[in-house]
Amino acid sequence: MPSVCLCLTHVLGLCLGLLCLLFVTLWSAHWRGGFSWDGSALQFNWHPVLMVSGLLVLYGYAAVVYRLPFTWSQKKRVWKLVHAGLMFLALVLSVLGLCAVFDFHRFIHVPHLYSIHSWVGISAVVLFAVQWALGLAGFLLPCSPLWIRSSLKPVHSWIGKAILILSVTACISALKYPTHYSTMTFFIFFKDSLPAEAKFVNSLGLLIVAFGLVTFGILSNEKWQRFELPGSITHK
Amino acid sequence: MPSVCLCLTHVLGLCLGLLCLLFVTLWSAHWRGGFSWDGSALQFNWHPVLMVSGLLVLYGYAAVVYRLPFTWSQKKRVWKLVHAGLMFLALVLSVLGLCAVFDFHRFIHVPHLYSIHSWVGISAVVLFAVQWALGLAGFLLPCSPLWIRSSLKPVHSWIGKAILILSVTACISALKYPTHYSTMTFFIFFKDSLPAEAKFVNSLGLLIVAFGLVTFGILSNEKWQRFELPGSITHK
Repeated sequence: MPSVCLCLTHVLGLCLGLLCLLFVTLWSAHWRGGFSWDGSALQFNWHPVLMVSGLLVLYGYAAVVYRLPFTWSQKKRVWKLVHAGLMFLALVLSVLGLCAVFDFHRFIHVPHLYSIHSWVGISAVVLFAVQWALGLAGFLLPCSPLWIRSSLKPVHSWIGKAILILSVTACISALKYPTHYSTMTFFIFFKDSLPAEAKFVNSLGLLIVAFGLVTFGILSNEKWQRFELPGSITHK
Repeated sequence: MPSVCLCLTHVLGLCLGLLCLLFVTLWSAHWRGGFSWDGSALQFNWHPVLMVSGLLVLYGYAAVVYRLPFTWSQKKRVWKLVHAGLMFLALVLSVLGLCAVFDFHRFIHVPHLYSIHSWVGISAVVLFAVQWALGLAGFLLPCSPLWIRSSLKPVHSWIGKAILILSVTACISALKYPTHYSTMTFFIFFKDSLPAEAKFVNSLGLLIVAFGLVTFGILSNEKWQRFELPGSITHK
């Protein structure tokens, strides 16, 4: 019988993920002027929304599909395809998110990849792409030998968690408010109270961290793994 | 026989931790003007050094002591004391690091805890303090019952990893260069090439992420656990 605690943790993760999407969309739409795809700051606004949607929330949801108790009685191959499909969608959203910020940089003539946020973020996306391709080759292609599957599984699982950590780190390192004031200007104007936008952005940050930790918690608990007999890794 | 791979991973983690300490100290000493304890920016410079030393590197070293192969043949109680002692030192350094930044804020009359960096960082330190106190009460006091020890162990292990993730996230979210220019000023002056300090700070960021992931890797591999018979949790 699936643990009630696991089900409640899944519901918590689902809600936190949806709240992350709501908050990041509201931030771009309400405080940052909305969306466009013309190279301007309005195109940049797609960047946080697409990265949080793809590299964090959808990635997190896709990572835990094998730990949904109702899937344990069903064929694993179906859920492998769901896992790979959701991960592919997450990767596409992440790449679109990168296009949004690269186009914006070209539009205002500033260099790409200058901050630690960008270095960590691009590492996460590159690792994600490599992980997806290796996962496809190792676990879904019928020709991959069983010994490769069993050797790759712990590595795949460990890199998957590492990508989640990189993703949370990249998101949080990007949440700087205000984006267009220097630190000193900020203090001169706002020293007595934090503006509503800053509180909102910080709350988004806490939601992102909470979502990451809950997802990581589901993945880390050995008792919440899909039950498999030792040596039962097959092509099915 | 301890795995060669585990030993090499320990050496890698040790080197990355030392490099983190070297880089953060050089950053504060060379680019940010050195150290003092007078409320000025020179007191602030202790903040990154103490937080990276305590909340990241020493914390990480203390977290993996049970996974050092040469300790497996020795009494666990000795290594419990080493683990608790190193963690206490890490906590003291972290609290001193917080004092450095709070004093600086008072000196220049700006509010505390305004950024997502500070929210994540303070959460990490509070969770660390609670974890240390619960660990002491649960695992070191002779009066704690065995059923509490066995129930607490997975929670202690999971919260320990969560603190490491929060710590890496807090460190990376703090590494903003330049600290006293606005983003736009930065681009006007440096649009064609990244200044040496920015490259140095970004490299420190990559070292911090790499140290976090290697430590996390050592903690996550089940095969690298200290061997214990099922139900063998004792007061020794």
